[in-house]
Amino acid sequence: MGGNEDAGKRAAAKRAVAEVQDGMLLGLGTGTTATFVIDELGRRVREEGLKVTGVPSSVRTAEQARAAGIPLIELTGVPPLDLTIDGADEVDPHGDLIKGGGGALLREKLVAVASREVLIVCDDRKRRPFLGAFPLPVVVVPFGWSSTRHRLERFGRPVSLRTKDGVPFVTDDGLYILDVAFGRIDDPATLEREIRGIVGVVEVGLFIGLAHRVLYGFPDGRVEEWARGGG
Amino acid sequence: MGGNEDAGKRAAAKRAVAEVQDGMLLGLGTGTTATFVIDELGRRVREEGLKVTGVPSSVRTAEQARAAGIPLIELTGVPPLDLTIDGADEVDPHGDLIKGGGGALLREKLVAVASREVLIVCDDRKRRPFLGAFPLPVVVVPFGWSSTRHRLERFGRPVSLRTKDGVPFVTDDGLYILDVAFGRIDDPATLEREIRGIVGVVEVGLFIGLAHRVLYGFPDGRVEEWARGGG
Repeated sequence: MGGNEDAGKRAAAKRAVAEVQDGMLLGLGTGTTATFVIDELGRRVREEGLKVTGVPSSVRTAEQARAAGIPLIELTGVPPLDLTIDGADEVDPHGDLIKGGGGALLREKLVAVASREVLIVCDDRKRRPFLGAFPLPVVVVPFGWSSTRHRLERFGRPVSLRTKDGVPFVTDDGLYILDVAFGRIDDPATLEREIRGIVGVVEVGLFIGLAHRVLYGFPDGRVEEWARGGG
Repeated sequence: MGGNEDAGKRAAAKRAVAEVQDGMLLGLGTGTTATFVIDELGRRVREEGLKVTGVPSSVRTAEQARAAGIPLIELTGVPPLDLTIDGADEVDPHGDLIKGGGGALLREKLVAVASREVLIVCDDRKRRPFLGAFPLPVVVVPFGWSSTRHRLERFGRPVSLRTKDGVPFVTDDGLYILDVAFGRIDDPATLEREIRGIVGVVEVGLFIGLAHRVLYGFPDGRVEEWARGGG
């Protein structure tokens, strides 16, 4: 954590925003790296007169983007978004992700699947040989949430209700988050399907096959790019 | 609709409630047939001193049950419910259902999957050779709902947002409902899995393999029973 990690995030964010062109409809992620993206995007809007429209993936991102002078619209999916730029909590060698540490994974996924291209920006230290060291966030309906947790516990891993100030953390959509400590996930696509099949589950923080490219930032300002299908 | 259909629903509801025993933890459905169930259950609690605890599947059912003198608790799933009694909009020859005309399908399914036994009560006219004449309710997240509708339209069938008094109908869980006019569903289990796989979808009104028994009521008071696995 701290300054060095921020430097890597900032470098990747700056590189991503450099790709944004006039007229784009842009999905805006949530979290610390997304904050750097919005900072830089706002700078280009104000200083360079860049014309873009943003679709925010959280109330928090909407507030930051509005303050930065970025025009916003709601997600409708038609027309599709040109590009979504977002962060991640973990990225594996296949470009698959765990997201949701910030609690916005449902809206982030809704924005991502409505986009022609998804560009992930993160510090190089988010790169992992496999997913699962980061607890997997699962968005659930508050009604009967402990019943849903009971069904999630059948995977044999610890499941905890995310809290904030001693009460359940509530997402922008009025939902709860259960964090599942898998440790190591060998088959993320199958796991995603199995968890999404549980009644009471709304979304899972596994983003499989959704990222087209990943920009890894380093503390010294270097950026490495990974692209789906080689490159 | 009207008196004759009510007579069939009432007959099935009375037969179902006759099975309830002292000490049971009972899932309570929602809708017109469930209303008759709660009426009769309340009568047994007041007149016969029946001791049960109910787990309501909607705010509306909770209000009716409370007024009828039935003690209630919230759904936790532990211990499992002994029995859930609920209605249905359509029932096919395999005991698979479409539910959700009343908008409570998410909580109804959460209660059903937390139950050891699910008993469906309905008028005989809800019996169908196949599912789908009744529009299939799909519960979705309000954020980006038209984007989710767009993805649902890939099935090639008309999709409409359920409204009430000219504004979107909002479920007890703060969600929207999209009704999909399939007409005829040939493979409900596959369709359920495909629709549940769409980002933004929370639940589908297909109840596959969940009903253990179905009681069909007739206007003349007769009741026919269907049981999973013969009988």
